[in-house]
Amino acid sequence: MGTGARTDPLAHIRDLFDLDDDVVYLDGNSLGAPPKNVAARVQEVVSRQWGRRLIRSWSEGWWEAPQRVGDRIGKLVGAAPGQVVVADSTSVNLFKALMAAVHGTDRAEIVVDAGTFPTDGYIARSVAELSGLTLRPADPDDLALSDTTAVVLLNHVDYRTGRLLDMAKLTEQVHAVGAKVVWDLCHSVGVLPIELDALNVNLAVGCTYKFLNGGPGSPAFLYVPTEAQPGFHQPLTGWTGHRSPFAMSPDYTPDPGVSRARVGTPDIISMLALDAALDVWDRVDLEDVRAKGLALTAHFRDLVEDLPGIEVITPDGEWRGHQVSLRHPDAATLMRRLVERQVIGDHRPPDVLRFGFAPLYNTFEDAERAATALGELL
Amino acid sequence: MGTGARTDPLAHIRDLFDLDDDVVYLDGNSLGAPPKNVAARVQEVVSRQWGRRLIRSWSEGWWEAPQRVGDRIGKLVGAAPGQVVVADSTSVNLFKALMAAVHGTDRAEIVVDAGTFPTDGYIARSVAELSGLTLRPADPDDLALSDTTAVVLLNHVDYRTGRLLDMAKLTEQVHAVGAKVVWDLCHSVGVLPIELDALNVNLAVGCTYKFLNGGPGSPAFLYVPTEAQPGFHQPLTGWTGHRSPFAMSPDYTPDPGVSRARVGTPDIISMLALDAALDVWDRVDLEDVRAKGLALTAHFRDLVEDLPGIEVITPDGEWRGHQVSLRHPDAATLMRRLVERQVIGDHRPPDVLRFGFAPLYNTFEDAERAATALGELL
Repeated sequence: MGTGARTDPLAHIRDLFDLDDDVVYLDGNSLGAPPKNVAARVQEVVSRQWGRRLIRSWSEGWWEAPQRVGDRIGKLVGAAPGQVVVADSTSVNLFKALMAAVHGTDRAEIVVDAGTFPTDGYIARSVAELSGLTLRPADPDDLALSDTTAVVLLNHVDYRTGRLLDMAKLTEQVHAVGAKVVWDLCHSVGVLPIELDALNVNLAVGCTYKFLNGGPGSPAFLYVPTEAQPGFHQPLTGWTGHRSPFAMSPDYTPDPGVSRARVGTPDIISMLALDAALDVWDRVDLEDVRAKGLALTAHFRDLVEDLPGIEVITPDGEWRGHQVSLRHPDAATLMRRLVERQVIGDHRPPDVLRFGFAPLYNTFEDAERAATALGELL
Repeated sequence: MGTGARTDPLAHIRDLFDLDDDVVYLDGNSLGAPPKNVAARVQEVVSRQWGRRLIRSWSEGWWEAPQRVGDRIGKLVGAAPGQVVVADSTSVNLFKALMAAVHGTDRAEIVVDAGTFPTDGYIARSVAELSGLTLRPADPDDLALSDTTAVVLLNHVDYRTGRLLDMAKLTEQVHAVGAKVVWDLCHSVGVLPIELDALNVNLAVGCTYKFLNGGPGSPAFLYVPTEAQPGFHQPLTGWTGHRSPFAMSPDYTPDPGVSRARVGTPDIISMLALDAALDVWDRVDLEDVRAKGLALTAHFRDLVEDLPGIEVITPDGEWRGHQVSLRHPDAATLMRRLVERQVIGDHRPPDVLRFGFAPLYNTFEDAERAATALGELL
């Protein structure tokens, strides 16, 4: 107790979130908690922008929102403006990214990390089938790339174990064989500094409802670096990706910039809820977020690693995201009983308990309360 | 004046909408006006469901929302439960529908109506290229189908002219050559009775932000009839379309039902705003809506068709949706000046003025005020 208040430079940020104090919420890696300003912003969007301005709002900020909000996310992932667009779901953006990455290739295979979040593997399989390539799952420690590799899809943080991959080293490995890399940032954006531009990453996708707190199912993002935009071709050629969408031309000419990755009409209420949620990032430094996340997860790990029957599967040291994953044969039952005690993490079958630590609102006391509850149950 | 109050069985429904009385809003065919209950519902979703229940809300109604809200739309399009899912944008759903329609076909062509809304044509082009078929735009009055036709994509109501196609007759024509039909209902859902099941329509898509008033960019819907579900295969194989999404299996096994058309995590705030917006349909009969829509548009047509320089391009008689489209060489300027006078329609280049009439909230007085303003400008 009390460790947090004395050592936590982000302690005051929790007040920006609408969270009950009796809940220990350790599932922000699945659904982030609501920043307090979101509710009012959504009211403004529904009641004033939609209700009073009606169709006129499309030319008063709505149309450009996918790029404008995208640029805000760009700041969190090391992307200069004009390279990130907010649109669709992560799965749909993965499809765009992979289809674009293999467009026109004469190479034979797509590689995906073997422990990938399922949707990445499913979409990669579809893209391989559509494009006549093979799909090869591979261990990130031994990707076995060659000059037949067209593209490598990697999860920056493993959703089960919390392992963090070395983006710099792996991007270099992929480039060394002349292949492209697509990074899935779902579990790392908002957790730690990312440098997409500096590392010459080819494409990246991520969701916004975990550590970015955009709300349930808030729209995802896609990074297409400036130099890759002219060659970014994918089959979801919806009208909002057109160079002149309101010309209503019968032929599709993609926008010259990142907007070519747009497809249908953007979902404005959710997009602007996300926009509000991002305000908190203007007030924090990602280095502080990272430092607190490592401290929180280390503290929790220390408290639980010797509990009976518990195996910590999250790597120690710096190569981890902001979650601690524990293996226990009764994981499902344990998590149900923890939730009954207002300690909310989640269970991933068959036997993994996940505890996500969001440095913007989780406290060292949260770690202690969760560890105590788990200890009592064991 | 006054024609409305005496003859309009839906007059009281306008009170359910949050609309300013000094605005004549005739663009509900582009963005429907907000039902009053949406604002409170969105607050409930953000503040209670997200804020208090956090991740638990996924198992308290969120997860099934795409099918539950889909069933509500199903009632408006003549689809029995379990055949409509709300997800993604219309463009993305068109891609799924067309890819599924050509899956495994040995036929050579996709046909699209020549006046299609652009995104339909763009997506159909992509699907043709991916699947090795040709794309042929055709006049709906002379589709020239043959046993080489795999699928025909038709817009139920033409977005420019407001012409309504005969779904029964055209579906029969398509089926007569053994092809499949995909109907785009964007401009007809909520305007008139539709009977997808009774007509054995193969697939249908539509948006929810026009006459269904779901809000800007609210998620679209996709109809996959029960008997077509086992054969519905499309490449956006996202995790939420999986038979057991939380098993996190490395292999994709589609859900046996309409949920196989789901892709990524559903956008809950917008989905539940739409859900609230649909409540109004529980209180009206689509036959009344259709009757009022025809009367409103006929009244407006009568008032404007003899104005100088105006050519009405919306068909007379019953084969039209709920808009009146006028051609005038100065259409862009005219619409700008109408909007200045609080008469809000829209302009489609180069020379079309569109006035949409939403029977749930538009009045005969709206038609008269709009016609008067247009007459003064001319």
